[in-house]
Amino acid sequence: MEIKIELTKHPKEKPSSENLGFGQVFSDHMFMMDYTEGKGWHDPRIVPYGPILYDPALMVYHYGQAIFEGLKAYRTRDNHIVLFRPDENMKRLNQSCERLCIPKVDEEFALMAMKKLIEVDKDWVPDAPGTSLYIRPFIYATDPYLGVRPSNTYHFLIITGPVGAYYKEGLNPVKIYVESKYVRAVAGGIGAVKTAGNYAASLKAQQEAKDLGYTQVLWLDGVERKYVEEVGTMNVFFVIGNEVVTPELNGSILPGITRKSCIELLKHWGLKISERKISIQEVFEANEKGLLKEAFGTGTAAVISPIGELYWNEQRVILNGGKIGELSHRLYDELTGIQYCEKPDPFGWVVPVV
Amino acid sequence: MEIKIELTKHPKEKPSSENLGFGQVFSDHMFMMDYTEGKGWHDPRIVPYGPILYDPALMVYHYGQAIFEGLKAYRTRDNHIVLFRPDENMKRLNQSCERLCIPKVDEEFALMAMKKLIEVDKDWVPDAPGTSLYIRPFIYATDPYLGVRPSNTYHFLIITGPVGAYYKEGLNPVKIYVESKYVRAVAGGIGAVKTAGNYAASLKAQQEAKDLGYTQVLWLDGVERKYVEEVGTMNVFFVIGNEVVTPELNGSILPGITRKSCIELLKHWGLKISERKISIQEVFEANEKGLLKEAFGTGTAAVISPIGELYWNEQRVILNGGKIGELSHRLYDELTGIQYCEKPDPFGWVVPVV
Ligand SMILES: Cc1ncc(COP(=O)(O)O)c(C=O)c1O
Ligand SMILES: Cc1ncc(COP(=O)(O)O)c(C=O)c1O
Repeated sequence: MEIKIELTKHPKEKPSSENLGFGQVFSDHMFMMDYTEGKGWHDPRIVPYGPILYDPALMVYHYGQAIFEGLKAYRTRDNHIVLFRPDENMKRLNQSCERLCIPKVDEEFALMAMKKLIEVDKDWVPDAPGTSLYIRPFIYATDPYLGVRPSNTYHFLIITGPVGAYYKEGLNPVKIYVESKYVRAVAGGIGAVKTAGNYAASLKAQQEAKDLGYTQVLWLDGVERKYVEEVGTMNVFFVIGNEVVTPELNGSILPGITRKSCIELLKHWGLKISERKISIQEVFEANEKGLLKEAFGTGTAAVISPIGELYWNEQRVILNGGKIGELSHRLYDELTGIQYCEKPDPFGWVVPVV
Repeated sequence: MEIKIELTKHPKEKPSSENLGFGQVFSDHMFMMDYTEGKGWHDPRIVPYGPILYDPALMVYHYGQAIFEGLKAYRTRDNHIVLFRPDENMKRLNQSCERLCIPKVDEEFALMAMKKLIEVDKDWVPDAPGTSLYIRPFIYATDPYLGVRPSNTYHFLIITGPVGAYYKEGLNPVKIYVESKYVRAVAGGIGAVKTAGNYAASLKAQQEAKDLGYTQVLWLDGVERKYVEEVGTMNVFFVIGNEVVTPELNGSILPGITRKSCIELLKHWGLKISERKISIQEVFEANEKGLLKEAFGTGTAAVISPIGELYWNEQRVILNGGKIGELSHRLYDELTGIQYCEKPDPFGWVVPVV
């Protein structure tokens, strides 16, 4: 398939690299392609970023058949633009498709289209330290039809936008509320894929935690309400004694790419890393015994987010004196170092765009 | 708030009342109103049905913050148009809003707007036996923003369309597959409200059951995978000996309005109706003992859907010889009788429109 390119006649003004937020500013172009039952994915095109006319019966508004990915393009010091493990995002995109009965895309083609789009909008990749171009590939159901069944038509889009450094004042540890009332997902459900409904399901708990002064919630498993799952849009790690522990991929947590990269780095460094069940009780007991050294979240947006405080069941744990831990720092430096090509890339994670 | 009305200049051709499907044909007009943080719900209007221009970063595509309702308007033999318990739908709409962090609507105002819309499109309410006008109120997040938080803007729409008789060849019993692999919802989650993500989560199981020759899946609870929850877009009832049993509202099943009406009718008739936990094991054991007389689903679309066959764990149960049961029939006749004003309405369920 050939990608048709229509360039904008009205380029927008780019925000200054120093004052970027997250998710509010979009680049000049977007990639788009259509799926029609019997015809497959067709008409790939790069067009000016802009609104689309949709029938109010569009299935995605009613039945939420929608999936997405999130990754970043980084501008290196010597002015190249690179991606971090984008093949993993394309693989996960198709896993999400599979679970949501959405027709899969050709991963190589989609990656090529993404690179092409970034090339077209290369001036939108910011250059201030810690900034990047956020990339959002997503697919949603477009049949104008009211009835619960998979759609026969879909749109696949990639939109991008420059985003600021996540930590403007350094790696600030966050306060986390361990959620006992609400449940995000359960094995047999859709928690292991990136689909719209998971995020809608998380809003209420997040809002209540925020009202209590917490940044995010830590989800527990939906069956026993005992085992740690993940945090907001991040996976979670604990350093207990000389063991680094992260919940195993149990069918209800998202298999994060930052999580995977951390596990690989920790192994590479010869540290003991376990993917296993870990109860919140164990975490709090480890703290009482003085063994809980650090806890941190991992995700594309923040890379590493140190946890400074955990609240559960009327108990409060302050981690590492509320300051960032050693391992959190090391992982953050290593990952961002690789992403911006300032450190060697022993695993071949970095993929050049231009 | 005054509802502005703009009538279409291009009325569409109406389909013949005899050949109606479901969810594919929409009336000439739609109701719409907007929510803006700080301003509340505003600009209620009835406008020609048609597409809307949306930014591709529209939050609903990404995070699924969307809820809906479904009900019907019926044309009576003496040419009035009536609704069935629409206040219950408006109440549930707001319960869904609450769970999804969507600002609530004024229930009375929304009901009034709905009636106004039906009045404007009254010629779209079909008159063949068993036909009706399907009404879909829905709300979705419209901020063009990538980040997981409740939206600050929303659209509330009501669209309608004529729908055919659900049972063209009489009340045909359906074949149901009891789902052991996938889970629809769990207590603490969003299963008890009508939000988009629940339906996306159900597609895969539904598709696999269909491939095996079944019409719908019966969901079991997500914790123990033992207790009956509901069927597709219906609640479920079993007649065991002289007891009618339906799963209690446990926080993961939808509180159906047809379910509620059936319970009230059964009580009114002096029958023993229990809302309680019921395991699939109990259902199959009752069958072995010859006590399982009937099973049926209840929902707005089908009213009553008799179950002719249940498949679970390599066991097959044929109910009532695969024919519709006595109580299923009685409930169907009574409910449709009330809905079309052919039977007395002792509970005041019917609400006139015009
Ligand atoms: C629910 C959830 N968990 C974890 C993650 C972390 O995944 P990744 O490291 O691939 O960004 C994300 C974000 O993508 C997420 O949405
Ligand atoms: C998941 C689910 N359960 C049950 C029902 C039945 O509810 P009601 O009787 O209000 O139509 C519906 C349909 O609305 C539904 O979507």
